[in-house]
Amino acid sequence: MFELLLTDPKSKARRGRLTTSHGIIETPVFMPVGTQASVKALDNRELLEMDTQIILGNTYHLSIRPGMEIIEAAGGLHSFMNWKSPILTDSGGFQVFSLAKIRKIKNNGVEFRSHLDGSLLFLGPQESMAIQRKLGSDIAMAFDECPAHDSSPRELQAAIDRTIRWAKECRVQPRAEGQLVFGISQGGINPRLRERCTKEIVSLDFDGYAIGGVSVGEPEPEMMFAVDITEPFLPKNKVRYAMGLGTPSQMVELIARGVDMFDCVLPTRIARNGTAYTRKGTVNIKAGYAKSDFHPIEEGCTCFACRNHTRAYIRHLLNVNEILGLKLMSIHNSHFYLQLMKEIRTHLENGTFSDFRKEFVANYVPSERVRAMSKNVTLPPITAIKSTHKGKIAKAKKTKAPSTVKTSKATKNIKGKQVKKQIGPKPTNISEPLKHSNNES
Amino acid sequence: MFELLLTDPKSKARRGRLTTSHGIIETPVFMPVGTQASVKALDNRELLEMDTQIILGNTYHLSIRPGMEIIEAAGGLHSFMNWKSPILTDSGGFQVFSLAKIRKIKNNGVEFRSHLDGSLLFLGPQESMAIQRKLGSDIAMAFDECPAHDSSPRELQAAIDRTIRWAKECRVQPRAEGQLVFGISQGGINPRLRERCTKEIVSLDFDGYAIGGVSVGEPEPEMMFAVDITEPFLPKNKVRYAMGLGTPSQMVELIARGVDMFDCVLPTRIARNGTAYTRKGTVNIKAGYAKSDFHPIEEGCTCFACRNHTRAYIRHLLNVNEILGLKLMSIHNSHFYLQLMKEIRTHLENGTFSDFRKEFVANYVPSERVRAMSKNVTLPPITAIKSTHKGKIAKAKKTKAPSTVKTSKATKNIKGKQVKKQIGPKPTNISEPLKHSNNES
Repeated sequence: MFELLLTDPKSKARRGRLTTSHGIIETPVFMPVGTQASVKALDNRELLEMDTQIILGNTYHLSIRPGMEIIEAAGGLHSFMNWKSPILTDSGGFQVFSLAKIRKIKNNGVEFRSHLDGSLLFLGPQESMAIQRKLGSDIAMAFDECPAHDSSPRELQAAIDRTIRWAKECRVQPRAEGQLVFGISQGGINPRLRERCTKEIVSLDFDGYAIGGVSVGEPEPEMMFAVDITEPFLPKNKVRYAMGLGTPSQMVELIARGVDMFDCVLPTRIARNGTAYTRKGTVNIKAGYAKSDFHPIEEGCTCFACRNHTRAYIRHLLNVNEILGLKLMSIHNSHFYLQLMKEIRTHLENGTFSDFRKEFVANYVPSERVRAMSKNVTLPPITAIKSTHKGKIAKAKKTKAPSTVKTSKATKNIKGKQVKKQIGPKPTNISEPLKHSNNES
Repeated sequence: MFELLLTDPKSKARRGRLTTSHGIIETPVFMPVGTQASVKALDNRELLEMDTQIILGNTYHLSIRPGMEIIEAAGGLHSFMNWKSPILTDSGGFQVFSLAKIRKIKNNGVEFRSHLDGSLLFLGPQESMAIQRKLGSDIAMAFDECPAHDSSPRELQAAIDRTIRWAKECRVQPRAEGQLVFGISQGGINPRLRERCTKEIVSLDFDGYAIGGVSVGEPEPEMMFAVDITEPFLPKNKVRYAMGLGTPSQMVELIARGVDMFDCVLPTRIARNGTAYTRKGTVNIKAGYAKSDFHPIEEGCTCFACRNHTRAYIRHLLNVNEILGLKLMSIHNSHFYLQLMKEIRTHLENGTFSDFRKEFVANYVPSERVRAMSKNVTLPPITAIKSTHKGKIAKAKKTKAPSTVKTSKATKNIKGKQVKKQIGPKPTNISEPLKHSNNES
């Protein structure tokens, strides 16, 4: 399914081709995130115009709303959202650990309370794979446990044990026709654990491999290190996916380290807060200087926003809370990511990737604010580890709801309530706060 | 500038053609409302694809944000928003009377406090025309006084006196190159006052005439009556515009009464609250039945939303607060209005308008909710009438701000705060309440 076309002579960067049920994906590739069956503020035409090859959907969110009954009745996720190109679905593991209220980790999955209404749910490898089979995604992800980056060695070890056990279960579950399944490596920045976990996962012979446990609040050097200690144990003939990453310069560096696939909410999330990517870093389009800046967000950019509108106009739209402002910003930032991947593929083909990498990373100076944002996803600590397994159904048996529901840090931003601590410009009533939110992850 | 192509033999309906600096407008025409230099949730391409011939902009809103300095620097409103087709600008009169905090009506205009920050501003015929000249709209509206529909005869009389006096001033102000100026008739449902006002306004020889004082909270029969008692005094060879109207069936009826132009915020406003137009009336796409309704909003509709997506998908998007849901709904409803006008023009050309009118109005049964909405625009009573004129500048001399600022009913929905009394479905944090809001009028 994956064809390695060439490897860069001066780095580990790879140019490849992944064949899926809904089409061929040229790698390296960036996958816009459509958590709730919509890439925020963009329609399918806009996505295709900016060279989107594949989008993400999310098991956890979609199984809650609209629910699998409706997506099945629609004929799967492609049909439900009328997206004819490939879709990768996340397993829901990350969301269960980052968004769910109070949860109990059990042998065969996690019992947790919905971040929306507190109802008791159960998600494990069998349930996740069954949902992804019904979603009919081209690529399903194994259900893993994603420990926080500051987990204790004992917690990390336990998480890896479960991740491996669950991967084995995922591997043997029935799939949708032609569906690929990717295994996920965990292990934080512990080389021994990463090696063990990666080798075990690879031994299961998945269609591709993801490096998990990154984009969970760790500093950038730790994230790079996690990839560095994982990559050597990944087979060359399978595609590699760094989950939840990253900034433009991070992606360039990760490609140089042998990663092929990326997904990240940053482009659309920071867009809605007025921050735009340029080749020289990020700029704040809501700032005062932009009031009468009659240039496009970036000179030479071929996106719909830059071809048609000025910073001054977009700044005005953001300032008066017009939805169009959010869309134009989201188009620009998503286009920036996709265009970057396209360029990198060309440089790999031309043998000029290393020069490009040096130049790009030297020129690209992200603001402190965006640096902070890209690290601002924190997983709550594991609260309870139990080894009893009550049932295999996704909806757990109705038990007495606890009178006080503990709310993890990551769930404070529910139902549009804005978190108090706010990074960056004052939020509008349309935009979401920058903090890792329940809607897009 | 206006060519009357034909008049329907069985009604007063007209098929016409209005030539402006930025192109020809075929009438009857519906003008999508872009109060703040953006038709809510839609981009220029989407507007053109649905056959938009002309859009509205607003003197009051645009002069406050982004401010005339920026729009002038951009080279006018067309250039600022990159809209190459015609634009009509409202004079700001309606907004001063409906949105501004505390105001004093003076001989040459209105001193009022900004609905945004309470700053003291002044707008009169000279200021309004100067702003519209700078905006560079194709059609500028005279600055009038729009009295509430329940005004006393004395108040109505005074409003008409000022409207006539101000129209005379507007008529002689300098214009942008090729700019047309329309006069506005007031007079509520008083036949004597309507006749007097209309005759006086028409005697000034404007390029077109608007029927104002409708869409101000009056019941539908009163609105129709106001048009019936105004139309006979309007010249046949000039275009007629019913301001702020209406529902689809109201527009059909108004066309039959000799009206050529319409603008209304209903299509986009009710869209954002989940209500869609169909040929049989309105439907609530957020309602439970739509969860698994895999048909388009309306079978046979050629809009982007109906060609690509189902009610179930759009319902899901609205349910999870995805911006795309607001856009798809806005596209459908705006397309519905524009398509209706296109059909009417064809029926007029084919001599089948009267049959169409009968059939359309018989089939179209708006829900009570939407009926209520279309009447839900209330103007506050006139609070002060003074005849002193302090100055001609738009920004009034800084006087002591009153320690208590009276807030009119219509200004309660400021800065995104939701009004308590809510019609229709629970609002999302993205959508605006249905009540006449400061953003779109």
